[in-house]
Amino acid sequence: MTNIIIHGCGGRMGHVVAEIIKNDPQCQVVAGIDPTTPTLDFPVFASPAECTIKGDVIIDFSTATAVPALLDYAKETQTPVVLCTTALSDDTLAKMKETSHHVAILKSANMSVGINLLLDLVQRAANILYDANFDIEIIEKHHNQKIDAPSGTAVALADAINEALDHQLHYVYDRSQKREKRERTEIGMHALRGGTIVGEHDVVFAGRDEVITLSHHAASREVFAVGAVKAAKFLAGQPAGLYSMKEVLA
Amino acid sequence: MTNIIIHGCGGRMGHVVAEIIKNDPQCQVVAGIDPTTPTLDFPVFASPAECTIKGDVIIDFSTATAVPALLDYAKETQTPVVLCTTALSDDTLAKMKETSHHVAILKSANMSVGINLLLDLVQRAANILYDANFDIEIIEKHHNQKIDAPSGTAVALADAINEALDHQLHYVYDRSQKREKRERTEIGMHALRGGTIVGEHDVVFAGRDEVITLSHHAASREVFAVGAVKAAKFLAGQPAGLYSMKEVLA
Amino acid sequence: MTNIIIHGCGGRMGHVVAEIIKNDPQCQVVAGIDPTTPTLDFPVFASPAECTIKGDVIIDFSTATAVPALLDYAKETQTPVVLCTTALSDDTLAKMKETSHHVAILKSANMSVGINLLLDLVQRAANILYDANFDIEIIEKHHNQKIDAPSGTAVALADAINEALDHQLHYVYDRSQKREKRERTEIGMHALRGGTIVGEHDVVFAGRDEVITLSHHAASREVFAVGAVKAAKFLAGQPAGLYSMKEVLA
Amino acid sequence: MTNIIIHGCGGRMGHVVAEIIKNDPQCQVVAGIDPTTPTLDFPVFASPAECTIKGDVIIDFSTATAVPALLDYAKETQTPVVLCTTALSDDTLAKMKETSHHVAILKSANMSVGINLLLDLVQRAANILYDANFDIEIIEKHHNQKIDAPSGTAVALADAINEALDHQLHYVYDRSQKREKRERTEIGMHALRGGTIVGEHDVVFAGRDEVITLSHHAASREVFAVGAVKAAKFLAGQPAGLYSMKEVLA
Repeated sequence: MTNIIIHGCGGRMGHVVAEIIKNDPQCQVVAGIDPTTPTLDFPVFASPAECTIKGDVIIDFSTATAVPALLDYAKETQTPVVLCTTALSDDTLAKMKETSHHVAILKSANMSVGINLLLDLVQRAANILYDANFDIEIIEKHHNQKIDAPSGTAVALADAINEALDHQLHYVYDRSQKREKRERTEIGMHALRGGTIVGEHDVVFAGRDEVITLSHHAASREVFAVGAVKAAKFLAGQPAGLYSMKEVLA
Repeated sequence: MTNIIIHGCGGRMGHVVAEIIKNDPQCQVVAGIDPTTPTLDFPVFASPAECTIKGDVIIDFSTATAVPALLDYAKETQTPVVLCTTALSDDTLAKMKETSHHVAILKSANMSVGINLLLDLVQRAANILYDANFDIEIIEKHHNQKIDAPSGTAVALADAINEALDHQLHYVYDRSQKREKRERTEIGMHALRGGTIVGEHDVVFAGRDEVITLSHHAASREVFAVGAVKAAKFLAGQPAGLYSMKEVLA
Repeated sequence: MTNIIIHGCGGRMGHVVAEIIKNDPQCQVVAGIDPTTPTLDFPVFASPAECTIKGDVIIDFSTATAVPALLDYAKETQTPVVLCTTALSDDTLAKMKETSHHVAILKSANMSVGINLLLDLVQRAANILYDANFDIEIIEKHHNQKIDAPSGTAVALADAINEALDHQLHYVYDRSQKREKRERTEIGMHALRGGTIVGEHDVVFAGRDEVITLSHHAASREVFAVGAVKAAKFLAGQPAGLYSMKEVLA
Repeated sequence: MTNIIIHGCGGRMGHVVAEIIKNDPQCQVVAGIDPTTPTLDFPVFASPAECTIKGDVIIDFSTATAVPALLDYAKETQTPVVLCTTALSDDTLAKMKETSHHVAILKSANMSVGINLLLDLVQRAANILYDANFDIEIIEKHHNQKIDAPSGTAVALADAINEALDHQLHYVYDRSQKREKRERTEIGMHALRGGTIVGEHDVVFAGRDEVITLSHHAASREVFAVGAVKAAKFLAGQPAGLYSMKEVLA
């Protein structure tokens, strides 16, 4: 049974984390930390310094400015942290790195179990299929308010594939401007935008008369909470160091 | 019962047409025309001029140079023609137009029943959904030997949608070079290339928390033969004029 | 400009309706009705009887017991109603029918624009494709808490297809128990259950070397609000009668 | 450079194998064996006994009755065999097993690289995702002449998943006859039949707000030839034993 402290228990993601843990017989919430001190079915403290309960691991979905104090608490109490707050400053990232020499810290670009599994599966597939003359293309779909294209996750998938293939491939974003056959070393990247689509990624391996497609569809940001709980159960009891979801799913 | 003459009965598409007709109780092959005069289970003549059997309609899958003589035969014998041979010269196209004043001729950019239906469905969908704030995008997938992108069919689908929406939309082929939100008037066009994919077209309508996708997947060029037989049954008995698959599916 | 009254403006769907209308230049909320009288950016009344503002049309997302009083108000003030509350009693349904002799009322099994469009598209597709020897199958996917299978919407889609084809077809739910070829008159119905999937419906038309798939994916119940607003703009000014989404999308 | 002998070089699959090898710089055909002794661009012999050319490995796409003589030849000449002929008798299977004590023989239920990769990926995915509360379902689509349902490949995929999860799961083919929630230990199996679909398999992992789908689409039986050539390059030089595609892709 893993005892978990939720840092940021008053926020939306904190609530989702608590609900997921409630339905998981392998772990429980022993305390929450949040400056708004909401009334929940576990003790809640206003700050890490005030938290008098010891946990096996902390799940953090807070704000960038709240993270440094959490890192101090983690080091002092020797409690590992699954760090899910994004947009950390360079100073905070440096502090995180330093703290990880003293206690286990896990940080990943994307906390979703599904995306992290996909990153692994596309490497395995690329290793087998590229040599068997399959072509590789990536389609991602996101809502019409998204400014960047392709998505960070699509690039991460392409990079994972390229790494597995010794960086032989290059990325192509537009085929309308030239009349030429596809080169074998291309990864076509296609960024569809529309409506309120949360995030869909399809990696297509097209060979002679067969096509393998590995897809991930997210319906909400709650997928990050599922990954965080899985990571917390893994991280409890680990030695000091900087971890990622890759080790969780190994 | 529609009596059909196959012009080009010795070629691959001619064989497929014959096989489809054999399994259709509403029509039969009464004669074939082909300079190679293959032995088939119906009478075969080397040229239209030598054909002594009268049919209700001709299905043509021959070669561009064989079409003018066929048009003469059609006019003289008052036999409608489903013209499926592609890459006709301007002269032949002009002759086709002229001949259509005297006998029914059907010619379509794409003979597939599925694609022609899709052209109709996307217009209907666009009429309803664009006004309800849905965004429209098109993904097409073809083999890695295809030189042009996007495919002619993808452009035809976009044009059909644009026509239904009074030409308000413009086409976008690459989103990687600018950091801007999608405009409502875009149709994103995505051309995936890989393996031996024969032809897949997805038209995506993405709205608030719902997505409608209308897809067509072709597994071979045989789909044109299915459309040709359907067209032939329609065209038999029609008055002179130039027809397309649009009228067949009306 | 359509002036809309939201009945049930304090509930989740009421809030979504208000937000959609705010972004639509063709309509505005002139009043809300809700016993909880929340503070919103339009006047809110505790009951229809207390509502002193006249609208062109009412959108109702309330509770079954609140509907009879709304029907009285609609009849008395001659205000059409888009009735989205579900699980109405037989008495209320009878009252609705009676009231529709005096004022326009719209009620549909599913208020989603996308599903209602799909109901139309599958009929059109079936008319063309069944005659061209395509086979028709339906796959639906819903969350793992759903008790009934197949979904009501999947049955509605099958029924729409069957109606278009003069009720020649029958539905098949399991192919594992017999070793026989598919009959031409089957519609295979496949109910996938998993995770938290909100609702996906794919209608597959499979022919000779081509497959057309018409799909609808819903990401939340908010899709009903989009349909309700579209219906309200249509219903304002219509004569007395009982309407459905079919007329809205005609 | 692997020197390959094609047993059954006159058949359709034999031709495809030869064409694939021609485009692969890592191997070449040194001889063919076929009782019809077709004229090809390599020496062809009527039977194994008459074959005077030594190869590094044999690819066999022949007929069940031709296999015993091939096994004798393989043992005698110490040439490994990729055995792709199906429907072997129990006697031939026993002889194959015995022969594999003396020379390397590879035999797999499905020779497709894609399907064999998928068998591996679904096990990896199941290991990670089942524990994270994902539900697993399989959809397969085949042509309307197929008699068995679900397909052998769909069952193989389900069995691979079940093996990875210590046989906790059971298979469900029909949900229409009971009104109950899905059990966690189900794998829903859905067999769609229509048109001329060659073979599509989707394995769906549905979790909390995310869905991973691993898909394989085959467009022809030629996919077996691609796998056979890959297997041949692997098998040349291997010690005696019975191999499967699993080792080829390891």
